[in-house]
Amino acid sequence: MKRHNFNSGPSILPDEVLRRASEAVIDFNGLGLSILEIGHRTPWFTEVIEEGRSLVKELMGLDDTYSVLFLQGGATTQFMQVPLNLLPVGGHAAYIKNGIWGSKAIKEASVFGQADVIGDTSDRNHSYIQKTFSVPDGSSYLHYTSNNTVEGTQWHTLPEAGQTPLIADMSSDIFSRPVAFDKHALIYAGAQKNAGAAGTTIVAIKKDMLGKTGRNISPILDYEGHIKAESMLNTPPVFAVYVSMLTMRWIKEQGGLAEMEKRAKQRADLFYSALDNLEVFTPIVDKQDRSLMNATFTTSNKDLEAPFLELCKENAMVGVKGHRSVGGLRVSMYNAMPLSSVQALVDLMEKFNQANK
Amino acid sequence: MKRHNFNSGPSILPDEVLRRASEAVIDFNGLGLSILEIGHRTPWFTEVIEEGRSLVKELMGLDDTYSVLFLQGGATTQFMQVPLNLLPVGGHAAYIKNGIWGSKAIKEASVFGQADVIGDTSDRNHSYIQKTFSVPDGSSYLHYTSNNTVEGTQWHTLPEAGQTPLIADMSSDIFSRPVAFDKHALIYAGAQKNAGAAGTTIVAIKKDMLGKTGRNISPILDYEGHIKAESMLNTPPVFAVYVSMLTMRWIKEQGGLAEMEKRAKQRADLFYSALDNLEVFTPIVDKQDRSLMNATFTTSNKDLEAPFLELCKENAMVGVKGHRSVGGLRVSMYNAMPLSSVQALVDLMEKFNQANK
Repeated sequence: MKRHNFNSGPSILPDEVLRRASEAVIDFNGLGLSILEIGHRTPWFTEVIEEGRSLVKELMGLDDTYSVLFLQGGATTQFMQVPLNLLPVGGHAAYIKNGIWGSKAIKEASVFGQADVIGDTSDRNHSYIQKTFSVPDGSSYLHYTSNNTVEGTQWHTLPEAGQTPLIADMSSDIFSRPVAFDKHALIYAGAQKNAGAAGTTIVAIKKDMLGKTGRNISPILDYEGHIKAESMLNTPPVFAVYVSMLTMRWIKEQGGLAEMEKRAKQRADLFYSALDNLEVFTPIVDKQDRSLMNATFTTSNKDLEAPFLELCKENAMVGVKGHRSVGGLRVSMYNAMPLSSVQALVDLMEKFNQANK
Repeated sequence: MKRHNFNSGPSILPDEVLRRASEAVIDFNGLGLSILEIGHRTPWFTEVIEEGRSLVKELMGLDDTYSVLFLQGGATTQFMQVPLNLLPVGGHAAYIKNGIWGSKAIKEASVFGQADVIGDTSDRNHSYIQKTFSVPDGSSYLHYTSNNTVEGTQWHTLPEAGQTPLIADMSSDIFSRPVAFDKHALIYAGAQKNAGAAGTTIVAIKKDMLGKTGRNISPILDYEGHIKAESMLNTPPVFAVYVSMLTMRWIKEQGGLAEMEKRAKQRADLFYSALDNLEVFTPIVDKQDRSLMNATFTTSNKDLEAPFLELCKENAMVGVKGHRSVGGLRVSMYNAMPLSSVQALVDLMEKFNQANK
């Protein structure tokens, strides 16, 4: 039996993507070879990666002033690669600290220069989005996390950056809604939520941002080298790129980002209504800042947490547990999640509420 | 029909590994979830990565003074990460330049300090292994490439490093033969030849080498952080690690590295005998330095190259072409290649020789 998959990432993927990917591991496009066995410079794979790069641009509505890369190392590697490539020696950049991932980005940036923390929601465990702040003059960029997977908050408007180039870690809400992607200088996302499987990272860069640091950048970490090599500076993670391409194809076929947003709102409305109405559960995040992707909550009585998790387990629901750093409960509802899984969870919550209120 | 796969990497994998991997993309171990959909911190995956790390140590005969990591970014990323972590500020390290990959490693090292090139076979297009050299006093390490995928040469003994720690890029011959792995301070290999699919890099490090550079290392690039986090500093490339683990299990079940070496020698003997005996083909590499994994050659008459490649194509043989940087012909014969594929190629070469001599 297929489970209800509320994992935060790696997480649920469309059945059709899994089926195609599984077939390709045995025989890719009827070639008589596995996707794992083909050279990355063969037309068989270059078509895949080019379709992938082109789908990223299409879904985001980006023009040719942007370049798209499939890199490796996850968003955490981008925490390092962004300042290495964009923060000039002796310069400074602005960072919003809205959660655990933003904090890690700040730590990496500090290795290369001055990271000014201009927003910090630690005072209430990052349970809200701070929308007012001032960006210091001369900041090379403003970095924010569009959706906080661990804390369950999400930016529903863009941060006001003025003339400062905007950089977003969109790892956990990329492709879940239309966004003014072209107001960003750089967007990155680990693929393992809405954009595929673990093992590749999507990076979209406004090309005129590059080449200004005055720093000797290691060739393999230099965005310019990757752009010049059309995302093939070295062997890309072939299978992960293929799964990302299939996932984006699926998004497009389903109706694109507007349709993804519509479904996300249906799922979130269903879940948060139950959460707000059931006495034994307590929301954590300020209403207006709630994430459509990751919902964090607790049981009103701490002793009810373990029995509720046990009940979820018995009902084939996985991933209903808070991140190890914060505890509590969390459910993730990414693009591929059917409304029926959320309905099943809500039914269970109502039953549990009835028995324990 | 399954093709004869002479690709240099990504390359041939055992059928059994492909079958298991394909099944896991639909349903991993009967869990009702795809391997692409499970959290990396669940016991379902931590068991996979722990078995993988333990198999690397077992196959290499390494004790607990070593740590094994599954990283991302390929061997090229290790070209950077090795000097970043092991070459002290103001220090120097020795590099053997035996081919294109060694040259790239030298370029990366030069970003972080002084890379002394102590052996250089450019004079004859890297068609041999230079075995005599002197290592400068105080070198932090001696770096070499155990098998040159592009040029078709291989070290059949270890370089004489004396007291200098030895570091090897074993990307294209790891797990193909028993080696004195424990004479190395660090070994790394992109998985996509004998150790799995593209998307993960195996790194085995003697732990007492670390923490001596006096450099402020980015957390995500710091081996020590990855070791402390047991190769889970951030989301690992789950599927690629799983395929590597399956591949190592297969190697062990087949009889381990001694058996892999026996088969490699059978394949290489069959191929090189034909190469030496057929007038229309010409070997490139000095006999004693020939690689058991990658055989490079040319047609004695340059005009015969295209028709031979066409004949290979007609006979369902892929990957019989030299690296784009050097041209000519090359066949790769990794662990998973059956002797029957080499026999089919040799038969074809004989037929072609007969028709064109």
